[in-house]
Amino acid sequence: MTSVHSGRRAVLRAAAAGGVGAGLAMTGLAAPASAAKSGPRIAILLYDGLTALDAVGPYEVLSRVPDASVVTVAKRAGQVRTDTGVLGLVADKSMRQVRDADVLLVPGAGNRGVIAAMEDAETVEWVKRLHRRTTWTTSVCTGALILGAAGLLRGVPATTYWASRSYMESTFGAIYKPERFVESGKVVTAAGVSAGIDMALHLAAKLSGERVAQALQLAVEYDPQPPFDTGSPDKAGPELQQLALELLEAAAT
Amino acid sequence: MTSVHSGRRAVLRAAAAGGVGAGLAMTGLAAPASAAKSGPRIAILLYDGLTALDAVGPYEVLSRVPDASVVTVAKRAGQVRTDTGVLGLVADKSMRQVRDADVLLVPGAGNRGVIAAMEDAETVEWVKRLHRRTTWTTSVCTGALILGAAGLLRGVPATTYWASRSYMESTFGAIYKPERFVESGKVVTAAGVSAGIDMALHLAAKLSGERVAQALQLAVEYDPQPPFDTGSPDKAGPELQQLALELLEAAAT
Repeated sequence: MTSVHSGRRAVLRAAAAGGVGAGLAMTGLAAPASAAKSGPRIAILLYDGLTALDAVGPYEVLSRVPDASVVTVAKRAGQVRTDTGVLGLVADKSMRQVRDADVLLVPGAGNRGVIAAMEDAETVEWVKRLHRRTTWTTSVCTGALILGAAGLLRGVPATTYWASRSYMESTFGAIYKPERFVESGKVVTAAGVSAGIDMALHLAAKLSGERVAQALQLAVEYDPQPPFDTGSPDKAGPELQQLALELLEAAAT
Repeated sequence: MTSVHSGRRAVLRAAAAGGVGAGLAMTGLAAPASAAKSGPRIAILLYDGLTALDAVGPYEVLSRVPDASVVTVAKRAGQVRTDTGVLGLVADKSMRQVRDADVLLVPGAGNRGVIAAMEDAETVEWVKRLHRRTTWTTSVCTGALILGAAGLLRGVPATTYWASRSYMESTFGAIYKPERFVESGKVVTAAGVSAGIDMALHLAAKLSGERVAQALQLAVEYDPQPPFDTGSPDKAGPELQQLALELLEAAAT
């Protein structure tokens, strides 16, 4: 049997050939690795009870935008636990340490997490503060409700988790659009959970051009082939909607 | 402006109505919340340099399979950092603490992370050990190479990250299939990064039936609408393939 120890060959084809610097120089994206990153500063809000994929889907795309820097931020630096309680993510910085960003990403959560975040004055004030100077203020899923609590959605076309449409409209005066993501000025909202991946590719194109965004779609091999066709409430119908909410609630902490 | 403080209304429609227990009882999924979980025990391997979405995509689906328990496992409990270095995930248990699982999920990584994992005897032995008693042994992206290093892929139809096809075939004798995920006996391998979501929905159907899997697809609103059609190497073509690998390498630690 061939040993994996026989050589430190690159497991990703072509990664060892050509040279990254040369390739990027050809595409006009080069920056010396030792230089301070000159690209967009992206802040991802983490909070107790968040839905992991809301944050991690966009992170996986946006962290590869050339020269981008990504920082995870929570009320206090350290571990936050997700909505199911079984996964911990680490926030590297506290809100006090991050007062400015070019892109703000606010992920969603289940009932408990998003209500706590909406009702937390420090969180809402931090979102308001960053929003004043962002290039893009973005949300995924019920993260839109936190933007709403910060007063950013009144009269604004937006989307959110399918089951939170009425709440977003009646509580924050947003104009719900049943789209995968909605760009309204500098506010970009994505639909539920996995929709953050679609939104992030759109943002990558805005930040660094379509060619980079197309390459990033390949980098995360995003050629989706869901085994069912039940990913939207209309396609799923009322019985699966009810079951989906029950399954979410049953797994929630 | 309407205050979010006016009531602790559920932000997810119907979550407060009906009652979860009643709903689950109707669908035959009920279990008292206080009972020990009787469903599949799912172990997700975490290791330094992993690609976050490889783990988090499947986690988001599988953690809602009725009565499933999910545990994150690394060589030592505590934080691991992802391939970009900018995100930390927390492993709750060490390999010594988790000697058995019904479902093992092995995520992928970039060159550095996956080579280190393949060459780490404790990791490879742990994968071998768990595989003996799993119902499903699964991988996402270059996680297949770790299954390969554990000797699980010789002569086995499998998939991996598009850029690792040759390595997987030549080093471990797997039979590469250009599919989103490949089920070979109890070994299920997914293609790159985001393909883990598709695989997890397939596994959810195997574990708990198609109706539950369909509801979970809605729960994560997985109705993908990628802004481009460049998610596979064939669709992207050689220039975007090269750029994708350069962007991955540029963002890697």
